[in-house]
Amino acid sequence: MVGACGGVGSTVALGLTALKKRLAPSTGLVTELPDFRHLDLVKPDQITVGGHEIRSESLLSAVRTMHSESRVFSPELIAKCAPALRATQRNIKPGIVHGSTRQILDLGDRKSVRAVATAAAAVDVIRRDLTGFRERHALDHVVVVNVASSEPPLKPHRSHNDYPQLAKAIKGKPRIVPASTLYALGSFAADCSYINFTPSAGARLPAVEQFARERDVLYAGRDGKTGETLLKSVLAPMFAMRHLNIQSWIGHNVLGNRDGEILSNPDVKASKIKSKDGLVSHIVGYSPDTRTSIEYVPSLKDWKIAWDFIHFSGFLDTTMSLQFIWSGSDSILAAPLIIDLVRLTEHEYASGRRGPMNHLGCFFKDPRRVTSHQYADQWRELVEHLRPTNPKIAP
Amino acid sequence: MVGACGGVGSTVALGLTALKKRLAPSTGLVTELPDFRHLDLVKPDQITVGGHEIRSESLLSAVRTMHSESRVFSPELIAKCAPALRATQRNIKPGIVHGSTRQILDLGDRKSVRAVATAAAAVDVIRRDLTGFRERHALDHVVVVNVASSEPPLKPHRSHNDYPQLAKAIKGKPRIVPASTLYALGSFAADCSYINFTPSAGARLPAVEQFARERDVLYAGRDGKTGETLLKSVLAPMFAMRHLNIQSWIGHNVLGNRDGEILSNPDVKASKIKSKDGLVSHIVGYSPDTRTSIEYVPSLKDWKIAWDFIHFSGFLDTTMSLQFIWSGSDSILAAPLIIDLVRLTEHEYASGRRGPMNHLGCFFKDPRRVTSHQYADQWRELVEHLRPTNPKIAP
Amino acid sequence: MVGACGGVGSTVALGLTALKKRLAPSTGLVTELPDFRHLDLVKPDQITVGGHEIRSESLLSAVRTMHSESRVFSPELIAKCAPALRATQRNIKPGIVHGSTRQILDLGDRKSVRAVATAAAAVDVIRRDLTGFRERHALDHVVVVNVASSEPPLKPHRSHNDYPQLAKAIKGKPRIVPASTLYALGSFAADCSYINFTPSAGARLPAVEQFARERDVLYAGRDGKTGETLLKSVLAPMFAMRHLNIQSWIGHNVLGNRDGEILSNPDVKASKIKSKDGLVSHIVGYSPDTRTSIEYVPSLKDWKIAWDFIHFSGFLDTTMSLQFIWSGSDSILAAPLIIDLVRLTEHEYASGRRGPMNHLGCFFKDPRRVTSHQYADQWRELVEHLRPTNPKIAP
Amino acid sequence: MVGACGGVGSTVALGLTALKKRLAPSTGLVTELPDFRHLDLVKPDQITVGGHEIRSESLLSAVRTMHSESRVFSPELIAKCAPALRATQRNIKPGIVHGSTRQILDLGDRKSVRAVATAAAAVDVIRRDLTGFRERHALDHVVVVNVASSEPPLKPHRSHNDYPQLAKAIKGKPRIVPASTLYALGSFAADCSYINFTPSAGARLPAVEQFARERDVLYAGRDGKTGETLLKSVLAPMFAMRHLNIQSWIGHNVLGNRDGEILSNPDVKASKIKSKDGLVSHIVGYSPDTRTSIEYVPSLKDWKIAWDFIHFSGFLDTTMSLQFIWSGSDSILAAPLIIDLVRLTEHEYASGRRGPMNHLGCFFKDPRRVTSHQYADQWRELVEHLRPTNPKIAP
Repeated sequence: MVGACGGVGSTVALGLTALKKRLAPSTGLVTELPDFRHLDLVKPDQITVGGHEIRSESLLSAVRTMHSESRVFSPELIAKCAPALRATQRNIKPGIVHGSTRQILDLGDRKSVRAVATAAAAVDVIRRDLTGFRERHALDHVVVVNVASSEPPLKPHRSHNDYPQLAKAIKGKPRIVPASTLYALGSFAADCSYINFTPSAGARLPAVEQFARERDVLYAGRDGKTGETLLKSVLAPMFAMRHLNIQSWIGHNVLGNRDGEILSNPDVKASKIKSKDGLVSHIVGYSPDTRTSIEYVPSLKDWKIAWDFIHFSGFLDTTMSLQFIWSGSDSILAAPLIIDLVRLTEHEYASGRRGPMNHLGCFFKDPRRVTSHQYADQWRELVEHLRPTNPKIAP
Repeated sequence: MVGACGGVGSTVALGLTALKKRLAPSTGLVTELPDFRHLDLVKPDQITVGGHEIRSESLLSAVRTMHSESRVFSPELIAKCAPALRATQRNIKPGIVHGSTRQILDLGDRKSVRAVATAAAAVDVIRRDLTGFRERHALDHVVVVNVASSEPPLKPHRSHNDYPQLAKAIKGKPRIVPASTLYALGSFAADCSYINFTPSAGARLPAVEQFARERDVLYAGRDGKTGETLLKSVLAPMFAMRHLNIQSWIGHNVLGNRDGEILSNPDVKASKIKSKDGLVSHIVGYSPDTRTSIEYVPSLKDWKIAWDFIHFSGFLDTTMSLQFIWSGSDSILAAPLIIDLVRLTEHEYASGRRGPMNHLGCFFKDPRRVTSHQYADQWRELVEHLRPTNPKIAP
Repeated sequence: MVGACGGVGSTVALGLTALKKRLAPSTGLVTELPDFRHLDLVKPDQITVGGHEIRSESLLSAVRTMHSESRVFSPELIAKCAPALRATQRNIKPGIVHGSTRQILDLGDRKSVRAVATAAAAVDVIRRDLTGFRERHALDHVVVVNVASSEPPLKPHRSHNDYPQLAKAIKGKPRIVPASTLYALGSFAADCSYINFTPSAGARLPAVEQFARERDVLYAGRDGKTGETLLKSVLAPMFAMRHLNIQSWIGHNVLGNRDGEILSNPDVKASKIKSKDGLVSHIVGYSPDTRTSIEYVPSLKDWKIAWDFIHFSGFLDTTMSLQFIWSGSDSILAAPLIIDLVRLTEHEYASGRRGPMNHLGCFFKDPRRVTSHQYADQWRELVEHLRPTNPKIAP
Repeated sequence: MVGACGGVGSTVALGLTALKKRLAPSTGLVTELPDFRHLDLVKPDQITVGGHEIRSESLLSAVRTMHSESRVFSPELIAKCAPALRATQRNIKPGIVHGSTRQILDLGDRKSVRAVATAAAAVDVIRRDLTGFRERHALDHVVVVNVASSEPPLKPHRSHNDYPQLAKAIKGKPRIVPASTLYALGSFAADCSYINFTPSAGARLPAVEQFARERDVLYAGRDGKTGETLLKSVLAPMFAMRHLNIQSWIGHNVLGNRDGEILSNPDVKASKIKSKDGLVSHIVGYSPDTRTSIEYVPSLKDWKIAWDFIHFSGFLDTTMSLQFIWSGSDSILAAPLIIDLVRLTEHEYASGRRGPMNHLGCFFKDPRRVTSHQYADQWRELVEHLRPTNPKIAP
């Protein structure tokens, strides 16, 4: 995991340990639903966690802070998992901030940040770290998951469209691509799969996809769909199927974790809102007045409250409304999906498939290829893809 | 329509006139969605409205009251449709209250209630009214829709399971079946289709279905899915598909129209709540703590506010919540669905099909045959049924 | 405290320990506001906790359960206070269930319930327990606070109006008065002050007040105002002062603790609702349509969610609405008020005053003498009463 | 009224006519509460409405649009008041846009805007208009009320602190003061009272107050307290008086009228938010994390929905929350307060008082002199000031 000791990363580490030790139910894990029972998915104890982190925080201190500040996890669970988390900590390497903005640089701790001269050098460091990790633990397959802080929108550069040009460009001029993309490149160079759970660029550039094809690797993304957007993807179809005309859909999100802090930067916020906002129009086939705002409210810690006000007209031009208030812990919602994505990626890998994993659209706000943004459709696409009789995944 | 001058009935009458005169968009009409464009459905001006009503209210006074009290419709629309509503009023006959409770009897106006000696006589009156209506207007097909007040749950009687016994019983002892069932029997006797948009018994008795088979007629029901339950049928699947464990689902409904008044009777309320409450358990496959309450609040008039609080646990036993507040006009939400049901029933009729219309499950809280309570599944069932290539409905 | 090991009682015990050890801020304690700084109120370490309890639960197990189920308190706090709670446990005596309903009897644990032959004997047991407690700890003043489960409304009996008659009646026929009243009588007999924080009868009977006058003791009540009703007492005045006409005020309360369980009994619920419901009419001077419902939802544990919908009309008959959603931990809200009431009662006692403490109205849903139900007025009454220059409390 | 044909202005005109004709109850009028019955306030039929307007809209078209778009007023009411509104229209003069921003200029209609060479000339035009209006209708007293669109925050200029300098400056350089201030100066020059119901500068400049003293006139302001802020002023005291620690207070306002459109300009929004945001800190005496956002959502028309999330901690550091959702029509809430302010200003005038009316603080978000922001205190200040025995207002 990139950003391994953040809220999501540390919850994944704690959760996998809890699952191994049978200290927690499988609630929240999509891959534990009956629909996927026929798949011989990798078990929690077959997964080894590692990652990169630029802050001085450890996995254990992260989950303890989560507990005391956000009232998630029980102290008993943390105590029982502490030895495993300390062991996992040895698999966390200092991270890369090459190409990062001031805000991210400020998060970084001197000892936890790897100094590199160029972006190309950064890619090479990542490649070597991943290869070393695989060899040290004798792993069959490494899946890199980006759960680091959101990056601001990427300024276009012509090298983004052609891998040879990009490979050349990153040797010189800095900041052509952000850290998330460097991790994607490093992952592919090391023959690892790559999943982007954030709205950052990651592998979403023609040049990077070109390199992925060259390396014949698996990848998916981007921006995990955990809360408000998930609700949009189930509620907007309802309005559509009842021919109720959405006039305005106003969403106000307040959250208090590091992600919220990073998003308080207007540029990064713009990137996130873009990822959240287009969905409704796509589903209903016209353009309601949609407005999404995000507010960083430190007292909420890892909790996120979303208030959505949906103003719609029905028969004979009557205006009505639906409001919802979602109150969830961001890390708790995201972590099991990360485990799901790793298991499903490993399943593809073991089935001999390579390339973009478009069937994973239901996990993302901004999936690579959008057949439908309706959650029910995306779900069916996933289930169909994994059907035992699906010839595409036959051995 | 049974209860033709109630909120729903009068909105249907006004709405059909508005559609004929192109004074309103088709918003709210499911059958006007692109998915159904290939069907040659009956047009608004091919539909003649008639019905029964036990109160002294007229269609025109009903819509005027709706406007002034509930701020729905525009005065201009009412003015332009008034002549048509007055004409339609001539098709409204005094109703039957045989078998009705005190509460319903109190609604009735002496001049608007038909005196009948026995339930069997009531069925005959209905049959003759319907036959007369069909002949007078030279109609191809009459669809009876029950939009009258909710009845309390039916006390079981052995005649309910066998038509010959029932036919005999209704000649004597009173109150074996409620008015809604008498209308169903009268409709079938007159070779009309029958749709029950309320939680009342209607045709939902083995004996009545036996009679429907005998008469080879179309029927569907029951209890239109317009608001809170519609939301349950799209939100509960989301929790299921994300493996989030619903602990409690609390729904509190406040409404101010005649339906609300009738529902303030504890018996009737029990019947309605039963129809609303089982859905979530059915969808998720286990039994969360579900509680639905209904409160009659006269100041709300035709508006219904539902507050639902959904308490669920996610990964590592973390408890989170979703709340929604639905604010809709009951009649405005129901009326277009009545028009949809009439059009779709006529489509079946014209296609030569008879019997229960199980493909209409998405319109009802308590459909006759439940394959799935998930809205997306019910929708697909409808679309599939009506697919041009569906051999079942080929000419 | 009567019901000492319940949610409120155990939170009071933990909280007082935490305050003594300076492990918690004074948040929630009204008496720690600057307005009361001039009073030389008793300090936490001058207060000794004792009580009665009919269940087998201990203070320590109660706070541990509260922590694990309701995510209140920190484990560190509990650990540091555990020795003190164990010591306090020795001051908790088996309770009285004489006159209690089946529901309360079922809560009781054989070893924790005192067997008594008559109500009069129960009063005597309580008197002796309190006297013994005072002597054992060499206390100046004992304040009994009822924080036990709510009792159903009391059936009137003529002895309720005359103490000599009551004194006689409780020697014979059972269930003339509930346990809360027996505790009040026992408290007064032992020269203790008595505060009723529940909607139960307690000292709210003419005969009991007569006895209180005889014994020259302090008393106050009833039903602590902690959440929804507190909001009513600040919001209703706003509507009044803006001449906005409240049409309907609908409150739906869901809660999951023992109080909620007891309230799921329709009789007890009726008693509680009565205590909550009259307030708005009293404040605005007319009778809006007010409806309060309570639902027991076990998954909420100690948390209480109240949804209130206020429908009001403004200028030119325009209908508007205010809704609020209150989410609070019942015990956490109540406990500091108990400490406030004890401190303020001790202040009266030390100032030489006796009788009903009508200036404490702001703490109760159903105060003994209602000058105003407006929170701001009640607050001013409290502050005025305690003003240094108030001749009534001058030495 | 400045901005006489806007939502608020036209509702005032309609409302006064309705009151004169006894077509509407006095709901919403503070001055019709029993607390003010002893005052011999001016009656609706003693008030003559006039004003300035820069748009081509008429009073009648404004109320008709309000009705059809926002479902306020009844068509019957409008019909009955139409002749009076047409007559009043003759008292509406073209407005001044000197010093206005592009946004306001764009609203203006060529024929409805008065061309003036300098700000001083604008002041003179206003003075003459007001004098002419008073003479034409033989009025005792003219009260000018600013209900025009919000202006952006004012850039400081040294002439703002000294009237002679200001008088000189406005003869030359443009845009030293905005239109709202020109109206204040013109009002004072014409011996009229001036009330600012908007967050614009108006009379809130030392130089302008200096001129007011010179002219010995009455004035008050600013920014009418009609919705979310009103709630803050009653809820924040509750938290304070219960010693509950507000951590964050997040307010999100969505509205669809011209005020919302103007507020969608970031500068103007900043001005409004400043006026709304400081209140809570002032009341509680510390600085919670307060965040107020405003979103222009055209489909809402004159309706404003505010969602406020209040995150607070109670005893033993337990975090709880209160949320409210306010749904009101802005013009309907504001209009009766305008009438109240006019009546109360006339009362001061008739009582021989002049100068700033600080006792009117309860009507404003940002009153001139803040003794307390608590609504109950502000209310008491008003009632005390108007007490029959108040020597300050004795004849």
